[in-house]
Amino acid sequence: MQTMYEQMDTAALDAALADLTRQVDEVKAKGLKLDMARGKPSPAQVDISRPMLDLLSSGADLTDEGVDCSNYGCFEGIPSARRLAGEFLGLPADQTIVLGSSSLNIMQSVLIHYWEKGVPGYTPWSKLDRVKWLCPAPGYDRHFGITQDLGIENVPVRMTETGPDMDEVERLCAADDSIKGMFCVPKYSNPTGITYSDETVRRLATMKAAPDFRIVWDNAYAVHDFTDTPDVLANVFDLAREAGNEDRILGVASTSKITFPGAGIAFFGSSAANVGEVANTLKVGLISANKLNQLMHTRFLPDLDAVRAHMRKHAEFLRPRFACVEEKLEEGLAGTGCGTWSHPHGGYFVSFDGPEGSAKRVGALCAEMGVKLTPAGATWPGGNDPHDTNIRIAPTYPSVEELSEALDVLVLAVKLVSAQLAREARA
Amino acid sequence: MQTMYEQMDTAALDAALADLTRQVDEVKAKGLKLDMARGKPSPAQVDISRPMLDLLSSGADLTDEGVDCSNYGCFEGIPSARRLAGEFLGLPADQTIVLGSSSLNIMQSVLIHYWEKGVPGYTPWSKLDRVKWLCPAPGYDRHFGITQDLGIENVPVRMTETGPDMDEVERLCAADDSIKGMFCVPKYSNPTGITYSDETVRRLATMKAAPDFRIVWDNAYAVHDFTDTPDVLANVFDLAREAGNEDRILGVASTSKITFPGAGIAFFGSSAANVGEVANTLKVGLISANKLNQLMHTRFLPDLDAVRAHMRKHAEFLRPRFACVEEKLEEGLAGTGCGTWSHPHGGYFVSFDGPEGSAKRVGALCAEMGVKLTPAGATWPGGNDPHDTNIRIAPTYPSVEELSEALDVLVLAVKLVSAQLAREARA
Repeated sequence: MQTMYEQMDTAALDAALADLTRQVDEVKAKGLKLDMARGKPSPAQVDISRPMLDLLSSGADLTDEGVDCSNYGCFEGIPSARRLAGEFLGLPADQTIVLGSSSLNIMQSVLIHYWEKGVPGYTPWSKLDRVKWLCPAPGYDRHFGITQDLGIENVPVRMTETGPDMDEVERLCAADDSIKGMFCVPKYSNPTGITYSDETVRRLATMKAAPDFRIVWDNAYAVHDFTDTPDVLANVFDLAREAGNEDRILGVASTSKITFPGAGIAFFGSSAANVGEVANTLKVGLISANKLNQLMHTRFLPDLDAVRAHMRKHAEFLRPRFACVEEKLEEGLAGTGCGTWSHPHGGYFVSFDGPEGSAKRVGALCAEMGVKLTPAGATWPGGNDPHDTNIRIAPTYPSVEELSEALDVLVLAVKLVSAQLAREARA
Repeated sequence: MQTMYEQMDTAALDAALADLTRQVDEVKAKGLKLDMARGKPSPAQVDISRPMLDLLSSGADLTDEGVDCSNYGCFEGIPSARRLAGEFLGLPADQTIVLGSSSLNIMQSVLIHYWEKGVPGYTPWSKLDRVKWLCPAPGYDRHFGITQDLGIENVPVRMTETGPDMDEVERLCAADDSIKGMFCVPKYSNPTGITYSDETVRRLATMKAAPDFRIVWDNAYAVHDFTDTPDVLANVFDLAREAGNEDRILGVASTSKITFPGAGIAFFGSSAANVGEVANTLKVGLISANKLNQLMHTRFLPDLDAVRAHMRKHAEFLRPRFACVEEKLEEGLAGTGCGTWSHPHGGYFVSFDGPEGSAKRVGALCAEMGVKLTPAGATWPGGNDPHDTNIRIAPTYPSVEELSEALDVLVLAVKLVSAQLAREARA
């Protein structure tokens, strides 16, 4: 599709450029300092979890169904927390482990485990000449960082409206045994906000792949709905088990965006065999996780119903912010041909795509105008967005007022860069 | 030294054996169930930290010197916690990182880092034909497990009254570049309870070793004194820096045996270069640690003086238990030649050595009588105590009454096994 600037005659385009440049200069003079870079809840949103802090006082019962949470032991996690993890992931409680605050840390530990020791019966990945990993893109930069850090070759696969391009995923996995795994954020995917279709989930669970192929199923936004029409994700564990692939799926999640970011509890779940094996290796480096934090969490959020009720409070903060993004982009860019964006029902991000070759320039221009965005390219492995179009908008941290200002800046930057690109193509 | 049973004539020995066997049968009939296996504080001892739980209530200020502890960020740890870590380890605050609850986990992460990537400028340890690690023994089984799990060859070095046998350590390190590191619990060593002498610390800091040689300086019992004559440990970081070896020392500690086991905060500290490098690699798998737990801890224990005052309360629980061990062993075994034991001024263990070839049998016999001990051999790498003499006594968890009973059982088991060994030598 052509942008409105490409359709202008050169005189009109030059006039538009002059006008946009003047507007940019005006914004620069304001000395703004706004941040739309990372998926953090706003301070007021975080505060809704403060009542949890009153639940473990000095006089509290610090046991959980007979387990003393104030001393060493119970490596796999306390009973109430494993039950919550099971509900959360869609697995029996005894197929879960509840650990410290970070699901990213669990993913890294489990991949290092396979890297060093291999999937039982197969060569350790570190001993193979080449190990590749599928990275649906745009995706989550910290995922890509884990495999990159191990020396695994990240292979991008384009995201679609229904999840990763499954024809491509199936073709690659069937043809290449060196592909050992894949990252998935199956619900409200970071950053596109889409939820994998039932068909995508089924194909991931059943497709042909290397016998030691593993899917990191990072259900980071499992309950992070903010509309009345939440997406519904199929249970990948059931589908994989039915297909005899139950060891394929490594489920993770955490309460970082439910209670306190960085201070929540994190869940791992998989087949019984995987859980036993992963527990044995993780035990080498951990006596037991912070069970008092687990206890505080399950007293506050004893089951998934309680979690959902709590998430409705979070939604009150998220809904106006996502509405603001939609409104500002629609108002500023609809019909211009300068961009498309996602319309998520949950999660933490809006994914924006501008004209080819625009994203890095838009990011730099926004920075000059005082608005910090996630670095352009970050949503692709190695920071390499092949068409340089994608920008991740993280609207949750700023106030609606700040967000509104920041989006005006983004719209202006997209327009100026689009006009510049149109002009340069003519020069 | 001969045991009293070796000195008896055979008739007297057979009578002693019959008498001891009868006593053992009587104990078995009691159906005891006592545990002296792991270094856990007793429930009443843990309870002294309960007031900490009241410090972060829903209305509390959740910032630490400007850092919002309730949201992502501040990977290295909050300012007050790094300051405490610095005081604790004997380093400037900016040469520390404060992470989750487990120092064991930090040690594992750091060793995996060197395993995968190597010390900067040197070959990754995983790419070397052979990597060896010095393990002062008797020592801490979980230390040995970390290196063993990576495929590193653990090399035992005998502990002395002043620390590891430094002549042997220096000889090995000077001769063999494949020795890449060493575990140390320098104060109230697990399990012997001794504190490294100034001379030992100096030699460790200054000795010749491979350029990528690293010492894990696990100061787990830094403030865990329970007598009025606490041991004093030299500052290894200062000595290493003066010798140009400041990158050699990897300091760790945690509050697990200060506040709540498994739910404390853990410290890492080293040279500025090491801290920067380790932080960069750990950041790959962690956005930020649980800063609310850090904040709760530093509000409770703002500095080392507060920690020491708190530790004096812990000592009230530990002193009578260690006195009971001393009294029971003295009463039961003094002058018998059947055992020697340590007399620590702090820490969590008493190290006991029986006759050659006795430890496994004593452990099994105690188990039959209903007393669980740390598995014999656990204090040596690979579970292989070359003389089968060492038993780790962990007296902290049981009540003094239970402990007293358990020690009677241990004394009886040591006597019977000693008598059996004497009889078998004659057969």
